[in-house]
Amino acid sequence: MDGKKLAQEIRTQLKDEVAQNGLVPRLAVILVGDDPASQVYVRNKQRAAEKIGIKTVDHHLPATVGQEALLDLIYQYNEDPNIHGILVQLPLPDSIDEAKITHAISPQKDVDGFHPINLGHLFMNKPYSLPCTPRGIMELLAHYKINPSGKDVVIVGRSNIVGRPMAALMLNADATVTVTHSRTRNLAQKTRQADILIVATGQAQMLDASYIKEGAVVVDVGVNRLEDGSLVGDVDFESMLGKAAYLTPVPGGVGPMTIAMLMKQTVEFAQRG
Amino acid sequence: MDGKKLAQEIRTQLKDEVAQNGLVPRLAVILVGDDPASQVYVRNKQRAAEKIGIKTVDHHLPATVGQEALLDLIYQYNEDPNIHGILVQLPLPDSIDEAKITHAISPQKDVDGFHPINLGHLFMNKPYSLPCTPRGIMELLAHYKINPSGKDVVIVGRSNIVGRPMAALMLNADATVTVTHSRTRNLAQKTRQADILIVATGQAQMLDASYIKEGAVVVDVGVNRLEDGSLVGDVDFESMLGKAAYLTPVPGGVGPMTIAMLMKQTVEFAQRG
Repeated sequence: MDGKKLAQEIRTQLKDEVAQNGLVPRLAVILVGDDPASQVYVRNKQRAAEKIGIKTVDHHLPATVGQEALLDLIYQYNEDPNIHGILVQLPLPDSIDEAKITHAISPQKDVDGFHPINLGHLFMNKPYSLPCTPRGIMELLAHYKINPSGKDVVIVGRSNIVGRPMAALMLNADATVTVTHSRTRNLAQKTRQADILIVATGQAQMLDASYIKEGAVVVDVGVNRLEDGSLVGDVDFESMLGKAAYLTPVPGGVGPMTIAMLMKQTVEFAQRG
Repeated sequence: MDGKKLAQEIRTQLKDEVAQNGLVPRLAVILVGDDPASQVYVRNKQRAAEKIGIKTVDHHLPATVGQEALLDLIYQYNEDPNIHGILVQLPLPDSIDEAKITHAISPQKDVDGFHPINLGHLFMNKPYSLPCTPRGIMELLAHYKINPSGKDVVIVGRSNIVGRPMAALMLNADATVTVTHSRTRNLAQKTRQADILIVATGQAQMLDASYIKEGAVVVDVGVNRLEDGSLVGDVDFESMLGKAAYLTPVPGGVGPMTIAMLMKQTVEFAQRG
């Protein structure tokens, strides 16, 4: 499954939508500290936004910024009718309470979908804003006409950002959902039952072909850098290639879809006014 | 598993706790309309509260009450420092937006655990208030020294009140969790893999012994009245009796635990001040 290509298509659609409707979506992007990976992520998001016609209002704050100052900035954007989305790049420095920041963002401007009230609404099947990676996976599957209804979906990993919201989305889509994790016994016995397998463990090439049944759909959320500098996912792509019916590559699979969904939610928020 | 006996023990403990700490927990109980079942539920809750030393402030409003009047009552109790918990008996008349009412209750006074922000916190493994039935099931299992960690838990039913929060609680307790429902294919094949099976379908005696493996733990959430007036659960108790290692009866299983947890949360809220 080519996430890169689909993400590009979605971004082109969004660009047209913004232009045709005369929208000026504005996204506040807040980066704290000098983590190199975070800087790359933020730059990619800013570039993607710019190409679509989303204006970003960028703040690069020093790691020493106080929690109160950060909260004040968020409160200011919560009140600003010209700002449609607020993005605080995680992780934050240890001196700042990440949960407190996430909860401070207005649920109506929570483009990342991390606010507990947005997760609660997702969980109750009345979603407003969705975490971008699981939403991107749903769009990728839909694009390839893979309907999860009645299917057996197995998720490996139970993070708040991927595994748990993914489970809620799949349940809302009428899939039978199993969530597995580090405490799961006989993991392969579970994953081999999956019609659709979603892997988000953060462990390089953890699952090979022995973990799937013939014809399974495999979605690999992981991005891991090996010692030789190459990027690999949480599954062994080569091993699964002949056995899986559909498989996402790393890079070029789920990653680009995540950014595309971030853009999509920002445009949606701007449309809602 | 004897939920009636354990619920009685918990209520006695709560009574002692209230007396020893000089607490005066106050629970606002709001009943709208004349649904006979709701009247029975409310009366049972009021009686249980009284015995423990929880004071209830009762409102029985006509079915014709306006949504605004009901909201005003909730706002009043949200602000009242002498009220620790607010309970609105569901279902509400069709003229009233149930979600709007549930969301209006302060999350800090949400003894039922139905507010989306409380569900979100549960989902993120940072629970504040829990839905009472799933919480009661966790306590029942703990009492019988059944630890879900690493176990295969299968839940039949995906309601917002039982199935979904139950899945979150079990995941938080390190179980491998499968959620099944009306769209699930080969249900028996899934339920037979369960070390712990939790059934909340609302269909009388839907699952018999063929749906479980030898030695499974079976928790029956259903309460269905047959034509002859007798109460039965969602599983066929007699059929499962020799095969399950543990089994909850109906009545006397999960039901009494739900009310005990409602009382427990009210006392906890009063303790938090």
